[in-house]
Amino acid sequence: MTIPPMKRALATKSHGRLSISTSLKPRELMTDTPRLKGAWTAKIVTLFPEVFPGILGASLTGKALKEGLWALETIDLRSYGDGRHKNVDDTPSGGGAGMVLRADVVGKALEHATHGVPKDRARWPVIYMSPRGKPLTQAMAQKFAQAEGMTILCGRFEGVDERVLEHYEIEEVSLGDFVLTGGEIAAQAMIDATVRLLPDVLGNHVSTEEESFSNGLLEHAQYTRPAIWEGHEIPAVLTSGNHAKVEKWRHEQSEKITQERRPDLWEAYQKRPK
Amino acid sequence: MTIPPMKRALATKSHGRLSISTSLKPRELMTDTPRLKGAWTAKIVTLFPEVFPGILGASLTGKALKEGLWALETIDLRSYGDGRHKNVDDTPSGGGAGMVLRADVVGKALEHATHGVPKDRARWPVIYMSPRGKPLTQAMAQKFAQAEGMTILCGRFEGVDERVLEHYEIEEVSLGDFVLTGGEIAAQAMIDATVRLLPDVLGNHVSTEEESFSNGLLEHAQYTRPAIWEGHEIPAVLTSGNHAKVEKWRHEQSEKITQERRPDLWEAYQKRPK
Repeated sequence: MTIPPMKRALATKSHGRLSISTSLKPRELMTDTPRLKGAWTAKIVTLFPEVFPGILGASLTGKALKEGLWALETIDLRSYGDGRHKNVDDTPSGGGAGMVLRADVVGKALEHATHGVPKDRARWPVIYMSPRGKPLTQAMAQKFAQAEGMTILCGRFEGVDERVLEHYEIEEVSLGDFVLTGGEIAAQAMIDATVRLLPDVLGNHVSTEEESFSNGLLEHAQYTRPAIWEGHEIPAVLTSGNHAKVEKWRHEQSEKITQERRPDLWEAYQKRPK
Repeated sequence: MTIPPMKRALATKSHGRLSISTSLKPRELMTDTPRLKGAWTAKIVTLFPEVFPGILGASLTGKALKEGLWALETIDLRSYGDGRHKNVDDTPSGGGAGMVLRADVVGKALEHATHGVPKDRARWPVIYMSPRGKPLTQAMAQKFAQAEGMTILCGRFEGVDERVLEHYEIEEVSLGDFVLTGGEIAAQAMIDATVRLLPDVLGNHVSTEEESFSNGLLEHAQYTRPAIWEGHEIPAVLTSGNHAKVEKWRHEQSEKITQERRPDLWEAYQKRPK
């Protein structure tokens, strides 16, 4: 029998190792709404469970979280630490600055995260946020949104012992070519990009069909009232009422801006199958 | 006379338009520590001031924030909204789904953010987080860390009226080729990547010289005790005690992993001036 996320959380709570926390309104998300069975779930292994859901608890993702359209579980890495001081890290083999998260400690937390989730990585990806990973793309977010949920390991310090990544066949995903103090912000970005693609999360608030990357191009410029602002007018075509002309202008703008700003995307766009 | 960040915040507070908030420990950061004059400052124009500092208030960035090594100011876009309902957005000119942030509303918030900051964009970049922007890189974070601070506009919905971006010569920066529900997570990522490069923020906790992108390569794998875990051993060279061999192995690993995972970085690395 599959245990629905809510029951699983409560059952595990008694072992003191799993917590669902929100920095906005503590515990509200756990008690207000019974979660829909099978809701897309992010399990996050982190040394900072208290920073979740953070921004994800606000706006449309927060509304969807409260409505049970998706669920969030944090697994406190510290509680798997070794000895009285709950050590989670040690110095790098071969020397060097900083500390490395230990394979044995991270392994135990990841074992815990496997409870009740499918082994098939297409149905439940297991991801380590790392600048050494494959850069996150909209296509990856779309793939993640098709899964039943995902487990995300957030690194800190100099990273995690490589053996744990190999042993559990963990996919490394990068937010971009920059370095963060930890994986938590990267995890929140990846979850936000994924959750907004789940059914019913955005409603009519925004369009996911006309936005950047959905057709391989950057999005056209947007304008709204007032018609004149600081002497700048809205391009006449947009107020012409001619729908076909508007579409043509927008598409040309998308192509132009992609060509100017992102030659790499433009090249891929021109090579796409038509 | 330059007004130090703390006084500026208090002075403006009386107009009810500037707030410094933290979702972790409300107001503590404002009152505990007098800010160092001239500390690197992030000014954030957002509809969700309450989600800051969020993760940035934890760990090393949080410690540095409390110590006054950097400062954070949020400017509530809603308070510049129009009429009784404080409207900030309107429907897109030319039609389409969603809403667009209005030039007049965003303009007023940005005008407020210019108080007390240098006009020179090298000293104080003004950034709009947008998937249409230039992708954030480690080199950009290094450049931002050299500035005195930065103003960051967080978008929501379908984006912001293009005229406001042009009028204020705002630089568009993208976190990557994916779409988020808003710019707040992207802003936190950019601030984290920048703040950790400020003097004294990281201390000896991690090395910024050997990490990914600092030399154009991805970082080598890391290992730490235990020596054997689940049957997997640490590569022998790392426990050999031969420093030169360790360095050689690590460099080769960096080259190998970059070549395998990021042909784009590898190509740029080979073309670099030597």
